[in-house]
Amino acid sequence: MNEIFDGVRALCVAAREAAPSVALADHATRNRALCAMADALERASAAILDANARDLENAAANGVPAVMHDRLRLTDARIADIAAAMRALVQLPDPTDRREVWQRPSGITITRQQVPLGVVAIIYEARPNVTADAAALCIKSGNAVILRGGKEAIETNRAIVGVMQGALAACGIDPRVIGLVTATARESATALMQMRGLVDALIPRGGKGLIQNCVENAKVPVIETGAGNCHVYVDAAADLEKALAVTVNAKCQRPSVCNAAETLLVHRAVAADFLPRLYDATREWELEFRGCPATCAILPEAIPATEDDYATEYNDYILTVKVVDGVDEAIAHINRYGTRHSEAILTEDAAAATAFQARVDAAAVYHNASTRFTDGGEFGFGAEIGISTQKLHARGPMGLDALTTVKYLVTGDGTVRK
Amino acid sequence: MNEIFDGVRALCVAAREAAPSVALADHATRNRALCAMADALERASAAILDANARDLENAAANGVPAVMHDRLRLTDARIADIAAAMRALVQLPDPTDRREVWQRPSGITITRQQVPLGVVAIIYEARPNVTADAAALCIKSGNAVILRGGKEAIETNRAIVGVMQGALAACGIDPRVIGLVTATARESATALMQMRGLVDALIPRGGKGLIQNCVENAKVPVIETGAGNCHVYVDAAADLEKALAVTVNAKCQRPSVCNAAETLLVHRAVAADFLPRLYDATREWELEFRGCPATCAILPEAIPATEDDYATEYNDYILTVKVVDGVDEAIAHINRYGTRHSEAILTEDAAAATAFQARVDAAAVYHNASTRFTDGGEFGFGAEIGISTQKLHARGPMGLDALTTVKYLVTGDGTVRK
Repeated sequence: MNEIFDGVRALCVAAREAAPSVALADHATRNRALCAMADALERASAAILDANARDLENAAANGVPAVMHDRLRLTDARIADIAAAMRALVQLPDPTDRREVWQRPSGITITRQQVPLGVVAIIYEARPNVTADAAALCIKSGNAVILRGGKEAIETNRAIVGVMQGALAACGIDPRVIGLVTATARESATALMQMRGLVDALIPRGGKGLIQNCVENAKVPVIETGAGNCHVYVDAAADLEKALAVTVNAKCQRPSVCNAAETLLVHRAVAADFLPRLYDATREWELEFRGCPATCAILPEAIPATEDDYATEYNDYILTVKVVDGVDEAIAHINRYGTRHSEAILTEDAAAATAFQARVDAAAVYHNASTRFTDGGEFGFGAEIGISTQKLHARGPMGLDALTTVKYLVTGDGTVRK
Repeated sequence: MNEIFDGVRALCVAAREAAPSVALADHATRNRALCAMADALERASAAILDANARDLENAAANGVPAVMHDRLRLTDARIADIAAAMRALVQLPDPTDRREVWQRPSGITITRQQVPLGVVAIIYEARPNVTADAAALCIKSGNAVILRGGKEAIETNRAIVGVMQGALAACGIDPRVIGLVTATARESATALMQMRGLVDALIPRGGKGLIQNCVENAKVPVIETGAGNCHVYVDAAADLEKALAVTVNAKCQRPSVCNAAETLLVHRAVAADFLPRLYDATREWELEFRGCPATCAILPEAIPATEDDYATEYNDYILTVKVVDGVDEAIAHINRYGTRHSEAILTEDAAAATAFQARVDAAAVYHNASTRFTDGGEFGFGAEIGISTQKLHARGPMGLDALTTVKYLVTGDGTVRK
């Protein structure tokens, strides 16, 4: 444990020392570094795929579930996608190019300048694309980054990080601004969470367990991301055609992601009309319905929902359905069971929509649109480091701005406080 | 412990339930509530002073240090000051009156709306003025607040909170939006730090021990405040008259506060000239000097500084002095020992100033001005809930804005993601 802790600490100290070489690099240099990283990854694709093949062999030998193999697997096409995403970042504006200046009667001039956070830590699972994406977002925004990915991807991550470090060095940026935690024991993640004074922000990316672990154990500032127990509420005044399209999209388009819907709340006045239509419309995915007693009375195919169902993010083709008496009950249910991610109302009643949007406590609250839009790209941010479900610092999709903070530069002429 | 935990939890649940009554109240109503609170506190001053007298008696009986008695003591004048500060808040703009609207090619319209955080928890020491100030800042910004003050002030806090709750109720706001933790055992603070899902942000206000405790043990999001091991660096190119004025102001004007300087770094080229002048200028406060060997050689009155001295926030008439070889050494020293609060360079060399302001990692970095300016009032924010020394969410003096977050309101017309 101590050896792992010391190793992680040394990595963070090195990143902190190196951080000014990216924080103080101008935007053109950081963009050149991104291009160099993209080029280098494509040039090194054979070596990266070799490393990836070793990870995949180990995964097979260690009985890692097949669904994880796909996340772990890289191909030439996926490496090209990673490189393309890096090159796309170049086109985005510099997130640190923002300042406000004002003078005070005391004689001081204050500049509020956007600056990089400093050292950002990312703890994630066995998705090697995150290694490259997160590093690129950090370099673009002038941050050093410590990466701690899932152990299943360690060989691939070593290869990717080595290539990116080489590209940085060639651009005059200290390669230690990208650090990879190579100790794969659980203790290395725990150690990273303790690096107060060295890590300015920790962003966990992954499943509920990983995020809970970070939020509960970190002593460094954390941005909680991801968990999405999202709801669609179909009001009495809903246009049922729109409601059908949005509910199907929110639930079935990509159920494995955090902005997919898990529970449908439907007004008693329209439930008997809406639910059978929804059932029919979702046969191609064989969507499973779990319902309250009123739902089960309307839809004999539904199985009874438990209290647990209301609190569960299935990430699967399962939908919990509850019949409610109106927008108040819908809001109360969502504020009780929701994870404050994305919530939707379907209604043609403007007052109901306004009440829902004002009173539901979530990062994104939709009126007549699908929860699936909660995404940095769909919001127009050009990039996304995660989706915050907390309220401090950033909420909802986080773009490059979320990787910056402010610094006050104050100038006087021997000015003292009275 | 369980009883205390359950009590704190019940208070937080009540605040969460009541929160919409202040979050959705319009600005005029929130301002009326502030006026009503101010009026009520002044009207109830006799009862509040009675409660305060009981706290002071208990403090004397329990051997609480005399310096704490002054912080604990209220007078008619202090109550009038508290009321005046509340009325001054009324004049400030509504921090939730800010939104940005844009449309996306997908057909959705996105409104990024500033909203209250929700439920804010404040853990602080035996300063009853914080009870009223923090509650007022939260009401102004539309937040519910849970207050957990030092046990020495419990009677005063009960009286103040009771009066404020009565004023809120008279204005149609649910009085449970101000909650007071009345269990004074240490476990009640620990319990409050665990209220995930109920507390949106925890702001500790007080000494280093209190803040460390919150940062290390909280499972809710925390804004770290306060600790200030601040430095003044007098460069070779300094105007020594300005340097003298700023150093004396930064160290001696009010040494007990977090933005006071603790260490002077002085360039070797001017140390022999500057240090004796500084020594003479600080005799009225009998400032104690603790120095590096070079300092002690110049100033025989200085006692040798230890490694600990460099890391200590004295909050007292003590100054550590180190002679350095230039701006690089000064920056390295500050980034090693500083708490990222407020740092100053005195120089007429613009390049040195620019390097110092860019490379010193702190919330506020001064050129030819005193560190004492790091303050919400001095920065022009009109109010201050604390000074953040972290980088997430808020950095430096936090005004009403720091008590808000954003919410995305998204509208479509049955719009689905492709």
